[in-house]
Amino acid sequence: MRIFNFSAGPAVLPEPVLREAAAEMLDWHGSGMSVMEMSHRGKEFIGIADKAQSDLRTLLAIPNNYKVLFLQGGAIAENAIIPMNLLKEKSAADYVNTGEWSKKSIKEARKYCAVNVAASAEDKKFTYVPPQESWKLSKGAAYVHVCTNETIGGVEYHWTPDTGDVPLVADMSSHILSRAIDISRFGVIYGGAQKNVGPAGLTLVIVRDDLLDQALPITPSAFNWKEQAEADSMVNTPATYAIYIAGLVFEWLKGQGGVPAIEKQNIAKAALLYDFLDRSDFYSNPVRKEDRSRMNVPFRLRDESLDEAFLKGAKERGMVQLKGHRAVGGMRASIYNAMPVEGVRALVEYMGEFEKRHG
Amino acid sequence: MRIFNFSAGPAVLPEPVLREAAAEMLDWHGSGMSVMEMSHRGKEFIGIADKAQSDLRTLLAIPNNYKVLFLQGGAIAENAIIPMNLLKEKSAADYVNTGEWSKKSIKEARKYCAVNVAASAEDKKFTYVPPQESWKLSKGAAYVHVCTNETIGGVEYHWTPDTGDVPLVADMSSHILSRAIDISRFGVIYGGAQKNVGPAGLTLVIVRDDLLDQALPITPSAFNWKEQAEADSMVNTPATYAIYIAGLVFEWLKGQGGVPAIEKQNIAKAALLYDFLDRSDFYSNPVRKEDRSRMNVPFRLRDESLDEAFLKGAKERGMVQLKGHRAVGGMRASIYNAMPVEGVRALVEYMGEFEKRHG
Repeated sequence: MRIFNFSAGPAVLPEPVLREAAAEMLDWHGSGMSVMEMSHRGKEFIGIADKAQSDLRTLLAIPNNYKVLFLQGGAIAENAIIPMNLLKEKSAADYVNTGEWSKKSIKEARKYCAVNVAASAEDKKFTYVPPQESWKLSKGAAYVHVCTNETIGGVEYHWTPDTGDVPLVADMSSHILSRAIDISRFGVIYGGAQKNVGPAGLTLVIVRDDLLDQALPITPSAFNWKEQAEADSMVNTPATYAIYIAGLVFEWLKGQGGVPAIEKQNIAKAALLYDFLDRSDFYSNPVRKEDRSRMNVPFRLRDESLDEAFLKGAKERGMVQLKGHRAVGGMRASIYNAMPVEGVRALVEYMGEFEKRHG
Repeated sequence: MRIFNFSAGPAVLPEPVLREAAAEMLDWHGSGMSVMEMSHRGKEFIGIADKAQSDLRTLLAIPNNYKVLFLQGGAIAENAIIPMNLLKEKSAADYVNTGEWSKKSIKEARKYCAVNVAASAEDKKFTYVPPQESWKLSKGAAYVHVCTNETIGGVEYHWTPDTGDVPLVADMSSHILSRAIDISRFGVIYGGAQKNVGPAGLTLVIVRDDLLDQALPITPSAFNWKEQAEADSMVNTPATYAIYIAGLVFEWLKGQGGVPAIEKQNIAKAALLYDFLDRSDFYSNPVRKEDRSRMNVPFRLRDESLDEAFLKGAKERGMVQLKGHRAVGGMRASIYNAMPVEGVRALVEYMGEFEKRHG
């Protein structure tokens, strides 16, 4: 029996995707092979990768002057790969610090350049997005880096920063494909796949053409965006099976009505949970309302000593992975695209019952 | 219907592994989740990763003073990651050049250090392994790098170099787990998974403890062996599904009788094909007999104009991916662990028939 899996990532995938993957495991479309066994340079896999890219371009309305790369290593590797690829002519970059993932990006970037923290929400325990008028951007920065959805703190940008001529670089790991975005406002968008895209081990990079020639000589070939763009992401053997699953997710998303339709569902799912939290004195979410994440909803029980009982009762009802990240404690419900509204309803219902029993 | 897939990688996987993966796709062991959906820090996945590592340690008899890392990026990424992790106190390394994969390693290493090519087989078109007495090792090299099986040229070391106190670093991508090796003779062993281990997107690194503290400051955290060793390969989210499939492959291999048993099969499979090639004037293999790869068997037809007809006929009989790498041309049969002897027999039979018809 399938359960409701609120994991922050790797996370729940659409059931039809898993059914198709299971059915095709031994013989993809009469090829006599599993996708896992296909040469990445064979016509079968190239077809799969091309379709995945093309569907992603459609879903996100990616302009033609942006390259889509399917790489490896996740956002944590990319935290190093970004400065490597962008620092050829500059020696500094601006970072906005909105939480744990911003901090990781900043720490890694310091290996390669001077980092100016243009704004930080640390003063209020990362419960908001610093408004742009408070940012202190530096002169001569190679780029401005933001994490547009903090998976751990549950803080999301619901607006797009304006950094003028300086390229805006965004870690969108945990909310890409959850809502419409204007790609043309960004220089680079990147993310690990293991939330709304597919299995862990695949990294998406969407990069504007004119930024492809700024790599430091120390950039490994496997992570050099220009080399990868010229080689259709096949400088090294790509994570072929993960690309295939991502392609199935993109197809599923198109069948759901694309990003605008899933965004509506996501708004409704998030409202269900936040409205419940706001009506309750027993549970609380610390994030400023305008900056709350639709994907990751951290919450606390008034009485921490009930945490274990809460998790145990949830598990008995088939709801798992609700424990908050160790950096912040409490609970967290990640409600990505593939989490059905029934899962959120079941959670809210359980939370109500638990409150009645223990409140 | 399943076919015989002679791809050099990603390559054929054991059919029982694919059957189990298909059966467990929607619900792994009653967890209600696909392995793809599991948090990498949950007890289910940690159990999967621990068992995979423990089985690999058993299969390869890995001593306790070696760490096993499950990373990402394949051998091409590792070509940069190796010098990054080993050059802290030195500025040069020795490389032995036995073919296309050695050349890639050398080219990448030159970004980080002075490379001394200690020996090269380029004089005879990479058809042999230069004997160790011809190697000109340098003084003060951080390590000596070899590629112990050249996937494209079909050249394999059937002996282990002795580099004294200088760590021996080996790219074993395309023959790891195909035969017994004495791990203790190596400082670092690495390889992409997509031949004998599992799906593309997973990199194995086996590194001796005392080499874990030699990284350059520019090493990305996701690829810093020491950080990854301390974090059980979870500095970043690992390629969880690929690790799961690798674990199933390791179980299958244990069921086959382990590495000594599969080595016997591999010797028999390779002999079947090479003996046939050596008896024929119609086909030829250019590699010196003592240095021939058991995994990758390149061969040529006397008359190149028949190449297309050969490939077409093979495909009609359910044998695919026999075209040689574009760097060397001709044909190549990759006969990894998961290629059943029946596949090699079918190939040899077809080659005999084709020769009779066209010879």
